[in-house]
Amino acid sequence: MNVSFLQELLNTVAEQGRSLLPKSLFREDPDRGLQALVQALVSERGEASGVAIARQLLHHYKLLKAEEREAFFRYIAHTLTPESSRVADAARAYLDKPSPGSLLNLQKAVESPRQEFFRRLNLAPGATADLVAMRRDLLGFLKKYPELTVVDSDLRHLLYSWFNRGFLVLRRIDWQTSASILEKIIAYEAVHEIKGWEDLRRRLDPADRRCFAFFHPSLIDDPLIFVEVALMQDIPGAIAPVLHEPAKSEPIENPTTAVFYSISNCQEGLKGVSFGNFLIKQVVEELVREVPSLKTFVTLSPVPTFARWLEKESLDAASEVVTEEDREVLTSLKPASWASSEQENAELKASVLALAADYFLRAKSADNKPVDPVARFHLGNGARLERINWLGDTSEKGLREAHGLMVNYRYELKEIEKNHEAYANDGPVACSRAVKALLRSPSKTKSFVKTVVQPEPPKALAPPKKSPEEDKIEAPAMPKAE
Amino acid sequence: MNVSFLQELLNTVAEQGRSLLPKSLFREDPDRGLQALVQALVSERGEASGVAIARQLLHHYKLLKAEEREAFFRYIAHTLTPESSRVADAARAYLDKPSPGSLLNLQKAVESPRQEFFRRLNLAPGATADLVAMRRDLLGFLKKYPELTVVDSDLRHLLYSWFNRGFLVLRRIDWQTSASILEKIIAYEAVHEIKGWEDLRRRLDPADRRCFAFFHPSLIDDPLIFVEVALMQDIPGAIAPVLHEPAKSEPIENPTTAVFYSISNCQEGLKGVSFGNFLIKQVVEELVREVPSLKTFVTLSPVPTFARWLEKESLDAASEVVTEEDREVLTSLKPASWASSEQENAELKASVLALAADYFLRAKSADNKPVDPVARFHLGNGARLERINWLGDTSEKGLREAHGLMVNYRYELKEIEKNHEAYANDGPVACSRAVKALLRSPSKTKSFVKTVVQPEPPKALAPPKKSPEEDKIEAPAMPKAE
Amino acid sequence: MNVSFLQELLNTVAEQGRSLLPKSLFREDPDRGLQALVQALVSERGEASGVAIARQLLHHYKLLKAEEREAFFRYIAHTLTPESSRVADAARAYLDKPSPGSLLNLQKAVESPRQEFFRRLNLAPGATADLVAMRRDLLGFLKKYPELTVVDSDLRHLLYSWFNRGFLVLRRIDWQTSASILEKIIAYEAVHEIKGWEDLRRRLDPADRRCFAFFHPSLIDDPLIFVEVALMQDIPGAIAPVLHEPAKSEPIENPTTAVFYSISNCQEGLKGVSFGNFLIKQVVEELVREVPSLKTFVTLSPVPTFARWLEKESLDAASEVVTEEDREVLTSLKPASWASSEQENAELKASVLALAADYFLRAKSADNKPVDPVARFHLGNGARLERINWLGDTSEKGLREAHGLMVNYRYELKEIEKNHEAYANDGPVACSRAVKALLRSPSKTKSFVKTVVQPEPPKALAPPKKSPEEDKIEAPAMPKAE
Amino acid sequence: MNVSFLQELLNTVAEQGRSLLPKSLFREDPDRGLQALVQALVSERGEASGVAIARQLLHHYKLLKAEEREAFFRYIAHTLTPESSRVADAARAYLDKPSPGSLLNLQKAVESPRQEFFRRLNLAPGATADLVAMRRDLLGFLKKYPELTVVDSDLRHLLYSWFNRGFLVLRRIDWQTSASILEKIIAYEAVHEIKGWEDLRRRLDPADRRCFAFFHPSLIDDPLIFVEVALMQDIPGAIAPVLHEPAKSEPIENPTTAVFYSISNCQEGLKGVSFGNFLIKQVVEELVREVPSLKTFVTLSPVPTFARWLEKESLDAASEVVTEEDREVLTSLKPASWASSEQENAELKASVLALAADYFLRAKSADNKPVDPVARFHLGNGARLERINWLGDTSEKGLREAHGLMVNYRYELKEIEKNHEAYANDGPVACSRAVKALLRSPSKTKSFVKTVVQPEPPKALAPPKKSPEEDKIEAPAMPKAE
Repeated sequence: MNVSFLQELLNTVAEQGRSLLPKSLFREDPDRGLQALVQALVSERGEASGVAIARQLLHHYKLLKAEEREAFFRYIAHTLTPESSRVADAARAYLDKPSPGSLLNLQKAVESPRQEFFRRLNLAPGATADLVAMRRDLLGFLKKYPELTVVDSDLRHLLYSWFNRGFLVLRRIDWQTSASILEKIIAYEAVHEIKGWEDLRRRLDPADRRCFAFFHPSLIDDPLIFVEVALMQDIPGAIAPVLHEPAKSEPIENPTTAVFYSISNCQEGLKGVSFGNFLIKQVVEELVREVPSLKTFVTLSPVPTFARWLEKESLDAASEVVTEEDREVLTSLKPASWASSEQENAELKASVLALAADYFLRAKSADNKPVDPVARFHLGNGARLERINWLGDTSEKGLREAHGLMVNYRYELKEIEKNHEAYANDGPVACSRAVKALLRSPSKTKSFVKTVVQPEPPKALAPPKKSPEEDKIEAPAMPKAE
Repeated sequence: MNVSFLQELLNTVAEQGRSLLPKSLFREDPDRGLQALVQALVSERGEASGVAIARQLLHHYKLLKAEEREAFFRYIAHTLTPESSRVADAARAYLDKPSPGSLLNLQKAVESPRQEFFRRLNLAPGATADLVAMRRDLLGFLKKYPELTVVDSDLRHLLYSWFNRGFLVLRRIDWQTSASILEKIIAYEAVHEIKGWEDLRRRLDPADRRCFAFFHPSLIDDPLIFVEVALMQDIPGAIAPVLHEPAKSEPIENPTTAVFYSISNCQEGLKGVSFGNFLIKQVVEELVREVPSLKTFVTLSPVPTFARWLEKESLDAASEVVTEEDREVLTSLKPASWASSEQENAELKASVLALAADYFLRAKSADNKPVDPVARFHLGNGARLERINWLGDTSEKGLREAHGLMVNYRYELKEIEKNHEAYANDGPVACSRAVKALLRSPSKTKSFVKTVVQPEPPKALAPPKKSPEEDKIEAPAMPKAE
Repeated sequence: MNVSFLQELLNTVAEQGRSLLPKSLFREDPDRGLQALVQALVSERGEASGVAIARQLLHHYKLLKAEEREAFFRYIAHTLTPESSRVADAARAYLDKPSPGSLLNLQKAVESPRQEFFRRLNLAPGATADLVAMRRDLLGFLKKYPELTVVDSDLRHLLYSWFNRGFLVLRRIDWQTSASILEKIIAYEAVHEIKGWEDLRRRLDPADRRCFAFFHPSLIDDPLIFVEVALMQDIPGAIAPVLHEPAKSEPIENPTTAVFYSISNCQEGLKGVSFGNFLIKQVVEELVREVPSLKTFVTLSPVPTFARWLEKESLDAASEVVTEEDREVLTSLKPASWASSEQENAELKASVLALAADYFLRAKSADNKPVDPVARFHLGNGARLERINWLGDTSEKGLREAHGLMVNYRYELKEIEKNHEAYANDGPVACSRAVKALLRSPSKTKSFVKTVVQPEPPKALAPPKKSPEEDKIEAPAMPKAE
Repeated sequence: MNVSFLQELLNTVAEQGRSLLPKSLFREDPDRGLQALVQALVSERGEASGVAIARQLLHHYKLLKAEEREAFFRYIAHTLTPESSRVADAARAYLDKPSPGSLLNLQKAVESPRQEFFRRLNLAPGATADLVAMRRDLLGFLKKYPELTVVDSDLRHLLYSWFNRGFLVLRRIDWQTSASILEKIIAYEAVHEIKGWEDLRRRLDPADRRCFAFFHPSLIDDPLIFVEVALMQDIPGAIAPVLHEPAKSEPIENPTTAVFYSISNCQEGLKGVSFGNFLIKQVVEELVREVPSLKTFVTLSPVPTFARWLEKESLDAASEVVTEEDREVLTSLKPASWASSEQENAELKASVLALAADYFLRAKSADNKPVDPVARFHLGNGARLERINWLGDTSEKGLREAHGLMVNYRYELKEIEKNHEAYANDGPVACSRAVKALLRSPSKTKSFVKTVVQPEPPKALAPPKKSPEEDKIEAPAMPKAE
């Protein structure tokens, strides 16, 4: 390939973007209403002047108020829809005689004209970012106007295709990165807030810190997702030292452990288009190349719904998990200052860790997956639960959401595929022996039989499989914050 | 936006591409057959290890012989297909009760799993170029195996979406461009052959020459389409001076006319995904910005099927176009050397030009569009036929195909949209008065009534409209040479 | 030229710099003392292994404490000196028979071996920045050890040659610039302090603000000098609105006036190597190209020594400048809050402005140039004094140093050369009529005769001319702050 | 450091260079003669308008004919010279009382104003390249006008300082490099002619070939020196296979030997400013980093003056080297076709190799260094003579100059410094045992005593040492071809 030519090549885009966009030379009609522009774009005229019309349409859209945007989406929901008689004819023809030909006809008949509409919108310079912003708006309207779901389905389908991992570019973010990107890192960080530029520098600049982000060539000043990494000698059990330790003047010699301590999605408009899995794996490859001494790849992750789950179980007199002894011990968690005073409370620690093991390994949602959203993400990626850390995050948020617990998920290259398959097939939760050892014996909590004894449910019982893509894009998205 | 960050950002891609790709750290299984890889890629395992499997699959594909590639495509044509019972159910449900919901279900049921298959293939580094190359193979197999049409339909649909003009980048090609790109320009030039590096330099380096190409960020060392331009003081009537005039030591002062004298598509695998229209219009915008003295934008184009058409008409005793006088005069065209000896043959010139006017303005194909493929392209873009040039191309090819004629199409910004609509609605061919004046009067050739008197055929007679995209991608592609 | 190749070309430097420098493969001897390294570098061995020895020497130097660095400089002051017998022989030979040949020999005999020493030091990667830092150290030792002047003379001579304007590159600094450069802008700003990143953004990001810096290719992450510019409709009279006005959402249409409101030298180690003159003129050229509506180029400058001068004159009973009336009126300046209460004190304003006119137009230093250092800089560049602004800077510093005055110097392209020559020849100070009108009549202040009546002192009285370079580098350097 | 900022930073230079340089806004006076411009540049006016005057002066210079350029140099030789009375005064003052102060004064008095003149010329954009071209002109005039030596001394001194290795950038040249650079590689190759673009590609593109060049940031489209390298498994003995072997489809696994088979200086105007030493050593470092399997670094070098030397010795009846037997055997070398017919002539081979060993190890020039210029270069760099290859270059040139011999010089990292010192001190020539074994015994050729027995001549006999720099820049420059 050709480094420098590419660089030049993309100057064009970027330079045009930097200055105000020059007015197109082609005809623009300022008085045209938005509906007229929609119609023009999908008509013959859209073929001759697509770029100019798309530019105008996007410009108009940005000037709209929220309720006008709603109206716009409802308009295209009702107007840009496959012709029902053509669909019906094609459906009948297919039922009559199923064949590749009749199927192809049916596929064409049902394709939503909105897809071509959005593709033509994308002709305008900078339009990809605008479309992502449009989808963010649209997501906000879905609750009020469920009929817009079909518009979202089309737009998401397109973005899923356009933001294919093959088009993304991984870049290191560091102190040499431009201020305009860095301020977005500050704004988008969703796990451990970055408190200004000095805090940011502490995360990017020291020799034992890394940050990587995915970018799309058409959204060049805006990261899609980024991860912050600390290079260490051991698996850390608490976040505070990772965030606040002063930078060492000398980089550590031969770090062995890469700790992914924060991963944040940046674009709400790309909800349901998942990058985290790819990001973590590519960053692992990058780090191995750069720092061959690295052998262990773990996260240091929050446990966002543990406290909520525990409260529910505690209130449930029939809980198979929380014992009477637990209930008594857990009262220590009430005072705001418990974490500083109760650090040495061995009983409390034992109870909480055992309950947390249950939370991770046995508790399941309706879809038969773990209840913890971060666990779902990392286990789904093929990681295993490595360690549950007592007093890992004693920030107000950490205490409130997780009674101070943090966990490590470990990415062991040789196990990723196997773990992912086990997860996908509702097998037992991949975890280390140490975590498993925290579990109370099955005689004590009746839930055991359900999950571990039957590691692989009979296929007949497995839920009907969805199509791969569907599964991908409808899966509960990674939470904004891990 | 951010020039430099983008540059860095794309270094990653390019640097990885330059060296041999490092072996992935993730599990690869060299003994896995191609079919197993196809199945793995669309399965759960494809979600965990998609990048690695896609890489392996593409690697295997490249080692296949032609007949093995055929077998591969036939395999995915038969295997990766929507489940017929699910399609039938959804079709019935829709017919039963047409609604946004039942339509959405039907859309999902009919979506070809090959689309997700190709999207997952694209996860591998460099895969986009491989997919374009795959489609080139596939196009070659369609005649022998028409059942592969459905595979092509899926792949073309995806490429059409991925190579959306919004993702393309226009770049100037000049003597500073890398040798690896320039040798592709030499290879891809399809209109006026480039005879080695010195010839190339004559087209790129002089101050009054320009060359622009579209690139896609994932095919960074390979142009998609390029156009060569000469900046002049007048509309040229012949190609030889444009190609062979020695470079002036001083650039012309304030050129008024930009002449697009060659436009070549580069990627056979993108057949049916059209860029030419966008390229010409963006180059016009670029040139106006750079050289404000430019006022006129014309092509100097070949007339590839004129000789063939004229022969057919001449042989047709019932021709309404070729008169007896013509037949006599046209015998002068027989000797190989006629062009040098007959330059001053006024009768011959008059006959040929009148017949050419007929060829452009009245002769139509079955689809009611002009017979000349280059005319179809430029007129479809909204240009008008500006001039027919006697002895414009006296090369062997020019004489053989067009009896030496060349034409200019003119892009007049204010008329482009109107012309395009006229073209789309089978209205009269947009042309200058000078060209119209070449036409013989209707009394002489009976075809007149058909085309000019009825500038806009009654809508009822217009052919049924296709969906916009369909029209776009199924339209007869621009020929490799203009 | 070749943009992209250059970019690649410099990647090398930068990439090497980013990571820790790889250990050289060539022999390094860690136990070698600094003196041994100095000797090795200037010996034969320095020719074979210059890069490695220079690298080692610079590494050692950085580990030295201040007094060890003094010792190092004293060592090279005494050791690396022309051989006195050779100098004496060459001097005698020249006196004996002055000729080009004997002169050449003398030139060679007197050339300080320290120059070759420093040139060889520069062989090491990144050495240029180290040499600049070394000179900063050296300047701090000169007072204590005047014998080091000869070392400084050699080093300055070299840096003057290496930082020739022909090697500098002008770059716009904006919000896309990397954080590592931007934090240096914050640190180096010497005129109007930048209070953090938000304040920085206010100076760089709005559409009507510009910042430009000179860089040297061997100090790529460190600006040499930068200037901040506001694009306006009028010449401003006060700094506060320039600094604090909220950014307009829309850029001003067709600004007419570029205001250089802050210019800061960055490298103490380059003291005496002046860039400001070149920077201003090139920025004027850049701005004219980018914003053709600009017609007026002015500074908004501090008056750093006005208050001190005025106090001295006031205390001097024999002052020819300060009248009794002035003395009385000036008492109003005493209270800290005078600026807010005395804005409308017409008498005070009249006195101060008249005295300021005297300060600028008549008061001279021993070298017969204006006393104000900023005036010396801009007048020496060929600007003229355009306006003296009452209450231009009411910050604590502005009031303390200049009783709140600020001035505008104007760069009028057609006058620059003439003004510079007048300045160089101790002619009258170039100024607008408005400024001249502030001067009291000569009858009132006796100093008039001295300066304006004799616009050009007879050549015989002019101070002996120095060689051009000497003049350049020994001229009172532009103050760190304008 | 900061990769991307630098890239942006240098865009400025390059972009300005690419288009025609915009007219300066500052005053230019087209009628000013060259002498007036010279005077203006060194005067006060040169300080205010140096950039504009330098630009004009360089523009005028380029329009001059050869004899006008001679006149220009003679003008500055006579005019821009230290004031003789000032030199005399300073010389006397120094002799009177030698002190750092009087020395400093003397240094200033003798500095040639031409140096400041050339430094000011360098203010103009692109001037560095112009100054290099100027020196090329000047070198051509030296023979006719020896008085211009003083001008050359000044200019060379400046270029020596400006082209310090610390400012140079090493870049790989490959098939991604721009055509404008590559055509210069073709033009500058001085050892083994490159016959067009295909030949060039064979040297750059295969996976086992490398090419590296030094660039200066102010001459960005013009290499200073470049070296071509082949990665191999063994030390090659002949050039033809290196040049003509077809590219392997697969890169060699783990090459052990890097062969520098061609090194060419590019800029005649930089004669005497030597880069080759630095280039080879840095390329060795680069290659070791990229290809860790490399252990051996050798050249494959021509022997340009062997045939001439041998002829002289043969004609010299008193030769201590050529025996009667040799004379007889050497007659076989006469016929043009001897190389193909005499390959197996063991006697001839023995004679020639023995004589060549003498040529390299014993024959000395007047300066007591080897007679072979390529040997002087590599031995001076610290390499050793590794092997003498029979029939290494059977091209017409190879046979004519060296009777087909080629040699390998080996760069052994641990020996470089020692070898260089031996060379500098006229010690024995560093060579392998195999080469030494080719030498005839001392009894046979009387020259032995002279060189090997006295490995280190007593210091007293060593020629007086020159100052380091002088030595560097006056040393016989590396020949254009190696």
